[in-house]
Amino acid sequence: MVIILKENPGKSQLDNLISWIKSQGVTPHITQGIHQTIMGLVGDTAKIDIELLQQLEIVAAVKRVQEPYKNANRKFHPLDSIVKVGDTGIGGGTMTVIAGPCSVESEEQIITVARSVKASGAKILRGGAFKPRTSPYAFQGLRDEGIRLLLEAKKDTGLPIVTEIMDLSQLELFSEVDVIQVGARNMQNFELLKQLGHSNKPVLLKRGLANTYQELLMSAEYIMAFGNENVILCERGIRTFENYTRNTLDISAIPALKTLSHLPVIIDPSHAAGIARFVSPLSLSAVAAGADGLIIEVHNNPACARCDGMQSLTMPDFAALMKKINIVTNAREECNAL
Amino acid sequence: MVIILKENPGKSQLDNLISWIKSQGVTPHITQGIHQTIMGLVGDTAKIDIELLQQLEIVAAVKRVQEPYKNANRKFHPLDSIVKVGDTGIGGGTMTVIAGPCSVESEEQIITVARSVKASGAKILRGGAFKPRTSPYAFQGLRDEGIRLLLEAKKDTGLPIVTEIMDLSQLELFSEVDVIQVGARNMQNFELLKQLGHSNKPVLLKRGLANTYQELLMSAEYIMAFGNENVILCERGIRTFENYTRNTLDISAIPALKTLSHLPVIIDPSHAAGIARFVSPLSLSAVAAGADGLIIEVHNNPACARCDGMQSLTMPDFAALMKKINIVTNAREECNAL
Amino acid sequence: MVIILKENPGKSQLDNLISWIKSQGVTPHITQGIHQTIMGLVGDTAKIDIELLQQLEIVAAVKRVQEPYKNANRKFHPLDSIVKVGDTGIGGGTMTVIAGPCSVESEEQIITVARSVKASGAKILRGGAFKPRTSPYAFQGLRDEGIRLLLEAKKDTGLPIVTEIMDLSQLELFSEVDVIQVGARNMQNFELLKQLGHSNKPVLLKRGLANTYQELLMSAEYIMAFGNENVILCERGIRTFENYTRNTLDISAIPALKTLSHLPVIIDPSHAAGIARFVSPLSLSAVAAGADGLIIEVHNNPACARCDGMQSLTMPDFAALMKKINIVTNAREECNAL
Amino acid sequence: MVIILKENPGKSQLDNLISWIKSQGVTPHITQGIHQTIMGLVGDTAKIDIELLQQLEIVAAVKRVQEPYKNANRKFHPLDSIVKVGDTGIGGGTMTVIAGPCSVESEEQIITVARSVKASGAKILRGGAFKPRTSPYAFQGLRDEGIRLLLEAKKDTGLPIVTEIMDLSQLELFSEVDVIQVGARNMQNFELLKQLGHSNKPVLLKRGLANTYQELLMSAEYIMAFGNENVILCERGIRTFENYTRNTLDISAIPALKTLSHLPVIIDPSHAAGIARFVSPLSLSAVAAGADGLIIEVHNNPACARCDGMQSLTMPDFAALMKKINIVTNAREECNAL
Repeated sequence: MVIILKENPGKSQLDNLISWIKSQGVTPHITQGIHQTIMGLVGDTAKIDIELLQQLEIVAAVKRVQEPYKNANRKFHPLDSIVKVGDTGIGGGTMTVIAGPCSVESEEQIITVARSVKASGAKILRGGAFKPRTSPYAFQGLRDEGIRLLLEAKKDTGLPIVTEIMDLSQLELFSEVDVIQVGARNMQNFELLKQLGHSNKPVLLKRGLANTYQELLMSAEYIMAFGNENVILCERGIRTFENYTRNTLDISAIPALKTLSHLPVIIDPSHAAGIARFVSPLSLSAVAAGADGLIIEVHNNPACARCDGMQSLTMPDFAALMKKINIVTNAREECNAL
Repeated sequence: MVIILKENPGKSQLDNLISWIKSQGVTPHITQGIHQTIMGLVGDTAKIDIELLQQLEIVAAVKRVQEPYKNANRKFHPLDSIVKVGDTGIGGGTMTVIAGPCSVESEEQIITVARSVKASGAKILRGGAFKPRTSPYAFQGLRDEGIRLLLEAKKDTGLPIVTEIMDLSQLELFSEVDVIQVGARNMQNFELLKQLGHSNKPVLLKRGLANTYQELLMSAEYIMAFGNENVILCERGIRTFENYTRNTLDISAIPALKTLSHLPVIIDPSHAAGIARFVSPLSLSAVAAGADGLIIEVHNNPACARCDGMQSLTMPDFAALMKKINIVTNAREECNAL
Repeated sequence: MVIILKENPGKSQLDNLISWIKSQGVTPHITQGIHQTIMGLVGDTAKIDIELLQQLEIVAAVKRVQEPYKNANRKFHPLDSIVKVGDTGIGGGTMTVIAGPCSVESEEQIITVARSVKASGAKILRGGAFKPRTSPYAFQGLRDEGIRLLLEAKKDTGLPIVTEIMDLSQLELFSEVDVIQVGARNMQNFELLKQLGHSNKPVLLKRGLANTYQELLMSAEYIMAFGNENVILCERGIRTFENYTRNTLDISAIPALKTLSHLPVIIDPSHAAGIARFVSPLSLSAVAAGADGLIIEVHNNPACARCDGMQSLTMPDFAALMKKINIVTNAREECNAL
Repeated sequence: MVIILKENPGKSQLDNLISWIKSQGVTPHITQGIHQTIMGLVGDTAKIDIELLQQLEIVAAVKRVQEPYKNANRKFHPLDSIVKVGDTGIGGGTMTVIAGPCSVESEEQIITVARSVKASGAKILRGGAFKPRTSPYAFQGLRDEGIRLLLEAKKDTGLPIVTEIMDLSQLELFSEVDVIQVGARNMQNFELLKQLGHSNKPVLLKRGLANTYQELLMSAEYIMAFGNENVILCERGIRTFENYTRNTLDISAIPALKTLSHLPVIIDPSHAAGIARFVSPLSLSAVAAGADGLIIEVHNNPACARCDGMQSLTMPDFAALMKKINIVTNAREECNAL
């Protein structure tokens, strides 16, 4: 951390600042220029509140050099983390495909889709029970019953399941769920994150629509700081000025997040595109860019889906896509072996 | 709502669509062009799920004409709503100033500030007990104790209080709070909104950092659809590419939201600017643009505030600003009387 | 400027860097930490290319402390600049209103509007001759003939005129134009800016739709670096996710640009809003926030305007707005006198 | 195009509107609802100015169904366009790599890089002669001399060349240049686009930093409407809230632009990332998503490049990347053959 002081800081204020910095276990080094005094802070500055410094009268600017997250930071954990979900390990250069319908709608639907995506090669089943909808008048999901049906599908197929939590009060319903998803709109629901930190279940943390990599990693840090290291990062499209697609897939998030953090990074091409025929090119691009996994919406009858039908693949289209994913995954391994 | 069909829609699919539309209590009117069939929907379309239509094979596009919110819509409620908080009515062309510290830090602090802002003309006291912070290592607020201290300040000064809720589980602590604030990051915490809909307490609903007016009004609709009509909308700055200010105040939100909705609209210049010396020009601009109120951060010692000190006014600066607010409020009334 | 070096920089690379910095007339001061070496640069760093430093192998990060613009910087020119246009001085706490149609359409139209806005109190006439239109099929302006008609209106009313240049090749047509406008889409047309820098005519420089304050000031710097100090900054709305208004007026640009720069700042509420009935609240908010002027679209028959009719005021509405502008300008002066 | 009229439009205004629409060669079809009148326009609506309709008093809203571009529209030109550059055809499912330095710096530099990228498999040489720089104090390119050196490199290697034009006045210097690049900041420099429309040289048109697909295609339409059909679209990263990368590559632009238009689409991973080590994953993702080409910055000595060194590959790194590009291109063909 570098603190740039205003010209001619008062001596007592400067002394106070120096004592405070030392009390945080950090050492200040001062460069005295003619017009400017610069203070370099050496030590663990992750926990220093940058705002407290910025508001001091003698401070002109504060710049972070080190990232404000520690548990999620690759610098302190150079090897890829692998998050275990049932028999599958997510991360470390493998490719895991998660698939299933946007919403659980009926026992028949979820079991039909689960069997089909398993046969095509998916390793984990997704399905929404609690649905965050912009309108109070839209279908809100089957809720408790949706969780029950997902567990039926898990029993039937052996696939682990991932589903979204919307509020802390729902947590006890998730005891047999394998991966708890935190949706984009809850990425900064800090009370929820803290509580998930006390769990040991894998958390699939989706990036918010207008959040930065650092904010996503700070949210991962919330979970990790309270003890749960099983965090899977998920890029699902950000909001941009382009409205032709539902959101804009930030493909650079893959190399960027994997540079900044050791956590696995998966891509949701369905929500990113919002258009079924774009799911295939986006999936393949994510594989080529090095993603650890994909989470793809598949429906037995997209035109009648109770939500997100526009972006859902049919079961045969998903089977065809899985073949392409395998081809590009092989090409990626060939590239890595060069 | 207007549905544009693809060329040559199949007859049975078209009949199905028409029956479904009628089953929603809405009447379809069809225009048959040479290359295009257009269907105009007449009736209450607010509750029709636009996505369900978009995903149909015979549909090329669907465009909303009516807004998807009803309770919050000025079309169905032409007069300004006035939300009562203690003796103060917010809305309807009056100017209400809410003031207080970002965080409650101690009994002495909150009582000192409360007395001072009351003397300067503030009608409601603000203060954070639960603080949403990006970093798990930053000060998270005094929580329960913070609420207790706010109630002390209320008792001391008679000022009603507004403070932020971060999770449903905190709701019972808010029984004596006058206005419950929903922060920008929780604007789409739909479970929380629903529950507040079952309350009758005024809710101060802040616009999310990257949300549209319609999304804000849909969140208000969540609260209102469940029975609570006491919603105050708050613009507090949106995220843009400009980082010199903390956020970017969208001043057009005032005339826009007041055109679309009958709900009162207040402005938070402190979070919008993030810089104390911009709070005064932004406050005055909001008054001139027709805001119903302002919520301003004031601290007894900004340089030592535990958060947001950079954007807090000192108590004397707030007193000076109140004088200017009164001058511009008078000018606004003079303009309205022309 | 602060350079943070990587751990253990090679001695010869470090020596090279130090020599290069000194060759730029700047003095480096080095702080040696345990894990980090920080170099503070003291002197005139505005002309140092930050990218050249960032790409060096031994450099971890470079942070600017000083702004990269000099001529436009208030630090080196503490007093407000006043740009003279005819008898009017723009800047320094006065309020100048510029008004006229989006496009010049006919002699009768421009003279009718010019006389009317003059009678209402406008000091400068605006009107588009060259029109930047997204579609090649849309009306592109009367071009040369438009300039001729503007000069007729100037002769008739005595009002100085401002009109937009779209390409260097049009420059000779602007010899009798009083203020040359550079539109938002040309804010970074650097060849055009350089050439205007060799002129001594006032330039009204509009902020680009997605540009920062610093980028706007760097574009002003282009003009000023080549010798022309008569630059007027104009905020005309930025692109955000909100599409209800045409653009989003960044009202904070007023105090921010006036803090960073000594140049006058005017507001274009018409393009910002894109909706005629919002022009009045936005204009008043700009006055209250301290703008030096307004540029407002006024048309004799908005419903038949060849472009931008939706956002144009009628002549009587403009007359009514001018009365309000005067009331709020007086209130602003009263506030400043406190 | 669909026009939604206000309730109870006046008969004479409605008749005027109908006549005007017919005069544009388009047929209106009217649906009369109880509260709403909807008019569907059948015919070629691409040239109708939507703004002229929106500003009419009797019109509540206008929605486009057809795109406002025609020459660039795949609907009217279903087969992929292939733009010939020397012996290379860009488009139609092939993969063309363009490579070279950000700026031409010396004869030795450009010839060294040209020979090297040719040996690695690049088909076209890039290099900047006129450089758009945010700061007037930054290196502005070798200009005329840069063009001369590029032509030397072309003579030496036989590679066609692409370089950026910044202003119409430079056009005559481009007579022997093979592809004229229009940079992101000039995407809406309409006078320049018109003039390039009168040329028959291929134009590489870069998407602006905050522009939509439709705006990009409207800019292509400007060139095509004046007769030049040789337009290559280029996505080079858009501005988002994420600042860790220089820009954000919008990978969905590939399938989206190829759906909307028949023009070839290439990707610039260097400017998108701004970080050399991300160029490889982004390049491979673009190939997998179906791009027709890549334009990559390669420098003989990135650490000393006069601009953009941070994002330039070394010549050996480019050679290694070309091998990977070939592997993923083969995988893509295997997928397409399924």
